[in-house]
This record gives sequence, C-alpha cells and structure tokens, in this order.
Amino acid sequence: MKHLNIGLFGFGTVGQGLYDVLKRIDSDNVHIKRICVRDIHKRRSVDADFTDNPDDVFCDKDINLIVELIDDAEAAYDIVKRALKSRIPVVSGNKKMLGHHLIELIDLQEQYNTALLYDASACGSIPVIRNLEEYYDNDLLCSVKGILNGSSNFILSKIFNEHMSYNDALKLAQDLGFAESNPTLDIDGWDSLFKLIIVTMHAFGVYVAPDEIFTYGISTMNDSDIRFAREKERRIKLVAHVEKVDDKLFMCVIPQLISRNKYIYSVEDEFNGVVIKGLFYDKQFMFGRGAGGHPTGSAVLSDITACAYNYRYEYKKRNDSVLPTYTNDHRFRIYFRYKTAEQRDLLTFHQIREQYTSDEYNYIVGDVSLANLKACQEALRTPECFVAAYPFD
Amino acid sequence: MKHLNIGLFGFGTVGQGLYDVLKRIDSDNVHIKRICVRDIHKRRSVDADFTDNPDDVFCDKDINLIVELIDDAEAAYDIVKRALKSRIPVVSGNKKMLGHHLIELIDLQEQYNTALLYDASACGSIPVIRNLEEYYDNDLLCSVKGILNGSSNFILSKIFNEHMSYNDALKLAQDLGFAESNPTLDIDGWDSLFKLIIVTMHAFGVYVAPDEIFTYGISTMNDSDIRFAREKERRIKLVAHVEKVDDKLFMCVIPQLISRNKYIYSVEDEFNGVVIKGLFYDKQFMFGRGAGGHPTGSAVLSDITACAYNYRYEYKKRNDSVLPTYTNDHRFRIYFRYKTAEQRDLLTFHQIREQYTSDEYNYIVGDVSLANLKACQEALRTPECFVAAYPFD
Repeated sequence: MKHLNIGLFGFGTVGQGLYDVLKRIDSDNVHIKRICVRDIHKRRSVDADFTDNPDDVFCDKDINLIVELIDDAEAAYDIVKRALKSRIPVVSGNKKMLGHHLIELIDLQEQYNTALLYDASACGSIPVIRNLEEYYDNDLLCSVKGILNGSSNFILSKIFNEHMSYNDALKLAQDLGFAESNPTLDIDGWDSLFKLIIVTMHAFGVYVAPDEIFTYGISTMNDSDIRFAREKERRIKLVAHVEKVDDKLFMCVIPQLISRNKYIYSVEDEFNGVVIKGLFYDKQFMFGRGAGGHPTGSAVLSDITACAYNYRYEYKKRNDSVLPTYTNDHRFRIYFRYKTAEQRDLLTFHQIREQYTSDEYNYIVGDVSLANLKACQEALRTPECFVAAYPFD
Repeated sequence: MKHLNIGLFGFGTVGQGLYDVLKRIDSDNVHIKRICVRDIHKRRSVDADFTDNPDDVFCDKDINLIVELIDDAEAAYDIVKRALKSRIPVVSGNKKMLGHHLIELIDLQEQYNTALLYDASACGSIPVIRNLEEYYDNDLLCSVKGILNGSSNFILSKIFNEHMSYNDALKLAQDLGFAESNPTLDIDGWDSLFKLIIVTMHAFGVYVAPDEIFTYGISTMNDSDIRFAREKERRIKLVAHVEKVDDKLFMCVIPQLISRNKYIYSVEDEFNGVVIKGLFYDKQFMFGRGAGGHPTGSAVLSDITACAYNYRYEYKKRNDSVLPTYTNDHRFRIYFRYKTAEQRDLLTFHQIREQYTSDEYNYIVGDVSLANLKACQEALRTPECFVAAYPFD
C-alpha cells in the first residue's frame, strides 16, 4: 500500500466527514497534508493546514493524491482536469461535474495514465459503481433502478410517515446536512440524474448527456398527489431508472408511486436503495446511507484506499462490440395532475385508464411515452402540474 | 480479456446452471471444453464432451481454467490443489472444502502464483466476498451478519408464512434444487458456518477453524418454539454472525428471533441477505438470490470473468499489523427450550429473564456465554432442546 499525502479541496459536510473518519482510524498511510477552501478567513473547527490557493496544493511535491469535495461543479472540473494532467490521482465526489464531463474525463485518465475514482459520488456508502464495474457482467444485466438521492427521500419520508409539511421537511434535511446547498439539485431530480448517468456508464458502457434524459422531481408535488398515493396504498419515491430492452437503453428520473411489495418502498429517510436486475440472478438489492458527512466520508475513504492499491476503473463495457443505443421511445403508465386544458394537451395518452376532473384540479392515469414527457419537461415543472410513474404491479 | 477454455467438474444444479448461463450469453471468450462427472453413464440433457477421468481435463493443454462445482468436499479439495499446483486458475463453489482448507489454499495460491476464486461459494448471487475484499476498509468494519443459507431460509419461510410442516418444506426445497443433497449441511447450520468462515477471512483477515465456532441449526425446532416466536411478534431466521469488539472477534451460527424492524426479517424464501456494519456508514444491506442453479451459475460466471481479467483475491487484511483474536467469551440473551433437569444444567445463565415450566416442555429466556453454548453444542442437538438468540431491540 502506497503512503498517501492528500491535498483536499473543500471542507463542507463531506470534507469534514472525511477528516473525522481519517482522524478516527489514525492510519499511518493516509494523511491530509493541506486543505484548500474558498474562504480562508472562515473559522474552522479543526487545526489543519488551510489555504485558498490551489497552487499550494498542486505545487506541493509531497502531495500524491487530490481529493475534491467541493460544491461548485465548474471549479471541481478545473481541479480534476489539472490533477489528471499533472498525473496526480484524484478522487471526486461531484456528480454534476461527472455527469457532464464523464467522457472527457475518461479520455484524460487514459491519456495521462492516471486514475480518477468517484464511487462516493453515487449512493454515498453503497459501493454501486465498483460492483457494476467489477461484478455484474454486461450481458446479464437488465436494469438498475433506485433511490439515489438521500435528501429528497428524507423529505418524502417525513411527508408520508410523519405528515410533515414539504417546507419543514426540506428545512430539516438541510439542518441535518443531507441536502445540497442548492436544494433544487436534490428535489428537482438533477442530483439523481447525474448519478444515473455515472451508474449507466459503469452498468452498460454508454454515456448519455443530461439534456437527453427526462428529469422530473418532487418540487411540484402537493397534497392532492399525496392523497392519491395514499388511496392507492402506495408511497411516492423519486426513482432513477436505466433499463436495457434488446439493443436499446432508456433512462429517466421521475417520482414513482411505489407499492408495498417493492424493495424500495421501505427505503426511508436519507437512505439509498438500488435494485440491480439480471437475466439469471433475478433481482439484487443494495441498501445503505446515501447522505451525510460520515457515511459519505467513509465512502470517499474507500476510493482513497483503492487509489493506494493503484485501482482504476477499466470501463470494460465501453469496449463491447455492440453497445445499446439510447432511446426515449418507451411507454409507461403515469399519474398526471394538471389544471388547464393547455397543460392537459401537453401529453398524448395512448390509453387513458382513469380520469378525474374538479374545480380545483384534474388528473389522468394513462400511458404516455418518455419522448413526449421529455419534450414538455419544463412546461410540466409548475405547481399546477405533477407527474409520477404509476407502474402496474 | 483472455480466451477461456473451461474444464468443468460436476454437473449438478449449479454446473448445469452455469452451462445454461454460458449458452444463453453465447460469449466468444468463454467456452466449456470438457465436463468431468462421477457417473459417465448417467443420461445428460445436454450434448457436451463428458468424461469421468480427471486426467482428461488436467492433461488437456487447451484448458486454461478449472471450474469445480461438485458436492464432495474431499474430491473438490484434490481438484483445487491439483489445479493450483498445475498453475491453472480455478473457480470453486465448495464452501465446506474452503471452510476447512482456506489457509492452505491461500498459501498454494501464493506459492504457485495462481488464482483461486470463490465468490459464488458464499451467498450465491450477492457479491459479498469481493466487496469485503475490495471495498470495506478493515478499520471501519464492525460486523457482518446475515442469512447465508437459502435452503434453511426457504424452509423457515414456508413454516412461518404458509404454516407448512417442517418435512414438507424440506421436501419442497429439495425438489426445487435449493437444498444440498445432504440436508444436514443446510438445516444444522454447517453450510452457513463454512460461508461465515470464508466471509470472516475477507472481512477481518482472520481464519477460524470450523470446530471452534458454535454452530446450531433449525433441525430441532418445534411448534412450541414457533409459537413462542409468534407470541413475541418475531420470526426465526438462521443467522451467521461475525463481530469485532475492540481487538477480539466472535463468531456463531445460531437461529435468531428477529423482530420486524430488522432488515433480515424480510428476507424470505431462498434469498440471502447480509448486513454489513461499519463505524461510519452505519449499516448496509445486500440482498439477492442465495440458491438455485441459474443465480449461482451466474455468480460462478462472475468469478470466471474475473479470472479472464486476471483478478485475484489479495487477502490484504491478513497483513494488517494487528489482527483481532478469536474468542467465545461473549454473552447474549437466548431462548432455550429443554425437557430434563440435566439439559437445564448444561447452561449457566448469568441472568434469567423469563421462565416457563410445564409437563410437556420448559423454557428459559436469559443470558449465557458463547463458550458455554459451544461446550455443550452436541448435547443441545436433540429434539428435546432448542436454542435461539433473542436479541434486545
């Protein structure tokens, strides 16, 4: 095992979590040498070598691993690129940055023969990326589906189990350090989307850009929707989903009405849960803490340890002779709440299965295509509308 | 990826499962060249090159991977040793053989610089060994606990959920191909024990011999025990458990009264479920099919694919400067049904919490030590007695 001197960027919830974890295990081999933060004048609870100049990290010859745990995706991108080009291995937790720049970062890893690890970026403490990379054979893999965002799941749990209001639940999630500083990332599904893009690369060897994928969150969900779910004995969960059908692949992030007999029905609070479906082993389920400083810090430590053993993602599945092509040509049943006739006409229902109208709101249960949803994604993102997948069980 | 010509030993449920899986994925790189079976005259459902002479496999220069999926642990041991000494990588599914000979087989791998992989041997399709080996840092790992035997779990599910009789449930498990040909291995906890020994090596770097570990199954469980569990709103599950406390490690295989709020309460039928507990990430839960030809066959394929990429277990944790030492000095609460005063006196209760006597049977709920249980393990294995852990929740 290599001795690692870490240059750490960012000292928020996860950065501090990593610091605590490292302090607790007191390893001889892993040591944070310098911490680069945006605001050098902010009072810190720990006694460490802080700087606000990235050069103090990159030009320190002792530092042989960069760990990047900052919020700002563009700044994270610059740090990761600079690290790879300087041939310093780098661990990143920034899923937004990875979701946008994965292909370029894979190429840079190859070009400079330097590792970028990011298991901690998706699903916190659940080792989903490394398992998809190492264990699940592509030919046998059918789908990966799960709750990938701890913060929105925490909010949904508080609403469904404790009848808390949306705003109180969001506030609590933020106070507990589960939510991103910009909550839109969590509650509108973007965080899940970026994780789904990363997961898909390791599951199926395919990169799909964020703007190709239907992404819809829980921010417009209201009491009518919650009541509808309760009447049907289901819970609403924000689900990220990638599935291979023959030689095609579709992906989406969408709230789902989940019935009690599904694994992810019981994934509560800030936990994440992933269901991996294969041709021969049926379903597997992995479950663990998806947010919070210490769980994510310990996931970052696993990436760090892997670096110490010179582990690299091999992206084997990218080299398969035939890769599935991306499509939004997939139909499924949804619940759609709307107010106006214009909103109603946004969606073309191939089959209508249930319909309700009133002075206050209206809803339709019926089958639509992902392409249709994608085409009016932004128009649906209004308090007057809410869309949730409503699978047959 | 290397091209693999497999010499397969054994063509039972799992061997045939592997054959089906390989046929279905139709890989250019993986090919079963010859199958060595005990009975060459038995009619086979597939058209393959069968032999009953191991030399036909070992002396075939084309064969560059041995896959051993036979029942007989001693014969499996000979095959695996011969493969390693011939420097042919080998995949094994025989947990009994591994549980007894793990140390020697680790040494042989090193001596002959040849891989032995056996992820499929524990937990069927759940990649628990490779995760413990690669992902979970030893310093952070507290315990691994779970349902590792699909067959006994299937029986318990049928009894608890469908009020089936013990014998009917066992028969059904055997008919469905979940049970070992010798059911004692499953229902008396031995299969779970061997898997626990393998898991412990990869979780904590320590080998503990089978005869040091308290092992107790469900074969003496009767209707009184089932009634007791139901009254307490718990289910009985056969649980394998390893836990590190400071610098000590204890292990056991024991039926447990599990309450509804535990992850493994909901692991039903032939499924396995493993809870991995760490200092910082709290608990993680992995769940999947633990028995059956196709799920296990697909797990064997994962080992084969790993071989194709020259993967080897590194047994990193064995090299830690300080390894925990094994102890049975651990107290916990149990439920103990017995008939005679002599049986009663087998166990020394440090605290008695509940007591029941009648003409038909008696029970005590109280705290005993693992060492005490271990000392009278065989005496407790009578229809007149039953022991189950009864944890506080």
